Amino acid sequence: MRATIIHKPGDIRIEDVPEPKILRPTDAIIRTAATCVCGSDLWDYRGINPVDEPHPMGHEYVGVVEEVGGEVTSVKPGQFVVGSFATSDNTCPNCRNGYQSSCVHREFMSTCQAEYIRVPTADGTLVATPDQPADDLIPSLLTLSDVMGTGWYAAVAAEVQPGSTVVVVGDGAVGLSGVIAAKELGAERVIAMSRHASRQKLATEFGATDIVTERGDEGIARVKELTGGIGADSVLECVGTQESMLQALRSTRPGGNVGFVGVPHGVAIDGQELFFSHVGLRGGPAPVRRFLPDLIDRVLDGRIDPGKVFDLTLPLDEVAEGYRAMDERRAIKALLRP
Amino acid sequence: MRATIIHKPGDIRIEDVPEPKILRPTDAIIRTAATCVCGSDLWDYRGINPVDEPHPMGHEYVGVVEEVGGEVTSVKPGQFVVGSFATSDNTCPNCRNGYQSSCVHREFMSTCQAEYIRVPTADGTLVATPDQPADDLIPSLLTLSDVMGTGWYAAVAAEVQPGSTVVVVGDGAVGLSGVIAAKELGAERVIAMSRHASRQKLATEFGATDIVTERGDEGIARVKELTGGIGADSVLECVGTQESMLQALRSTRPGGNVGFVGVPHGVAIDGQELFFSHVGLRGGPAPVRRFLPDLIDRVLDGRIDPGKVFDLTLPLDEVAEGYRAMDERRAIKALLRP
Repeated sequence: MRATIIHKPGDIRIEDVPEPKILRPTDAIIRTAATCVCGSDLWDYRGINPVDEPHPMGHEYVGVVEEVGGEVTSVKPGQFVVGSFATSDNTCPNCRNGYQSSCVHREFMSTCQAEYIRVPTADGTLVATPDQPADDLIPSLLTLSDVMGTGWYAAVAAEVQPGSTVVVVGDGAVGLSGVIAAKELGAERVIAMSRHASRQKLATEFGATDIVTERGDEGIARVKELTGGIGADSVLECVGTQESMLQALRSTRPGGNVGFVGVPHGVAIDGQELFFSHVGLRGGPAPVRRFLPDLIDRVLDGRIDPGKVFDLTLPLDEVAEGYRAMDERRAIKALLRP
Repeated sequence: MRATIIHKPGDIRIEDVPEPKILRPTDAIIRTAATCVCGSDLWDYRGINPVDEPHPMGHEYVGVVEEVGGEVTSVKPGQFVVGSFATSDNTCPNCRNGYQSSCVHREFMSTCQAEYIRVPTADGTLVATPDQPADDLIPSLLTLSDVMGTGWYAAVAAEVQPGSTVVVVGDGAVGLSGVIAAKELGAERVIAMSRHASRQKLATEFGATDIVTERGDEGIARVKELTGGIGADSVLECVGTQESMLQALRSTRPGGNVGFVGVPHGVAIDGQELFFSHVGLRGGPAPVRRFLPDLIDRVLDGRIDPGKVFDLTLPLDEVAEGYRAMDERRAIKALLRP
């Protein structure tokens, strides 16, 4: 089958590799309906994460179950499924506490930009849709496997409530999904920090009430101006740099909360500043599995349309162009069809 | 009047100074019934905080209102009052959000180891008891102005719930008060980390179900052993060092919470470790004022007796011995009677 392999930073190739097989009785094999390139894939592509040897890429996926292992009971061949980028048995204590991305059997998916995918602990990782979804819903369903699930978690971790004032730091696909999540959770005001016209437009379409183009101290001052001088109730940090983390922490009111979902790269938080800020902080790889049933319903009901974050659709064979377009910021997010 | 002045690290003196006066119409003057030495006073005493010039000490107090400014309406001369170590107007947005220790008019009290005390924004800072309390309740009421209020906030920030498993890092007066708070908030299991026999005993009396004497990696391993391998739901960090913060973060289960109330000294939190831990973190100077009415009731009803943390009572004139005894760990906490 065809699969995406990174050879070194900037060098993405589509290659023929053996099809995955059931390795454990809890595995499923799915035929990919759609996959995509994640902002976090760019850490490898840009050489910020080391690429020591060629390896497959991709952790976002929807598809049709092709085959299941002998112990799989909750999904069956022929069903359309959405799965999390992190596998989970959905029965261990961490899963039962709602943190399936800290499952004691967690694996991070990493071979999904391909025609077929092996999914471990399929019963606890995959959620089937009631029927085969209409083709135009596939992009939105695909976002649930990571970016929309992650934006949702950011809003939940930041404790967005009905009536909240929310700031979203980061205007990538996760940040834009965070705007949707904040709106759906009842935020009265959603301030998107963005300086790109196309992303500002999408943020507004998704429910942002204000756009802040300033960054750093000026961005913080602007948020304070918009929030009666004290800062926002909830801030979603969707980037993962020291600058974005400080932007988030310093834009939050005392007693407010930051949900941080950008994988931190070089981030250190000063204990004394955090202390005197009174800000609550929770982050992590999103426990997407917790939110999947609800988010699938919202997509199928037409309440949310996060698939709009895909502004580039390519055949899987052109995956390298997807990475390039995202790296050069010509595209927010590239969807791939095998 | 007599007041406590620090001249340099290790040099605490009782001196004659002018009595405080009403400076603003929102001030009150109180005659001190009892005050005490705080663990955080030792930062100055030990020279960890610089002492550039002689200055008064003390931020914990209960007493009787002597005089009020023209705009004070909620307390009146003759009433017995408990106040927070941080002043608050109790009307600004931060106060209304329950973070009175981030009041826009906040001042930190700093002259309380004295016969008389000026309290700014008295209406929003002080809470009167219904009557003059019995003398044996005064130590417990005094703890509410800081340590018990701070231990309570640690438990609230760590989101202790009925049935929770809680770890308390730090066996000083705040940590011991945190044990009381965890118990009162319904924790099923309270694991106190302590290696001092007298503090272990008090922790157990206050409701601790387990004592862990190990520290560092061994302490974390022991907590994991006691919590089914995953860590505690809630951890109260009541020290403020890098070691204690790591102890707290690494003893918490994924999705659990750390409430940190030890003023951080040299603490830096690695963003990536915090991210992958899924731990929620909130700290800060406790918004004691939020909890005062409830905690006063609990003391007057005899439900809690946090005054037991005072294992040394001295006349104010012997304040220097109070500092020495706490510095040398001969006493948990020293109460001073003017």
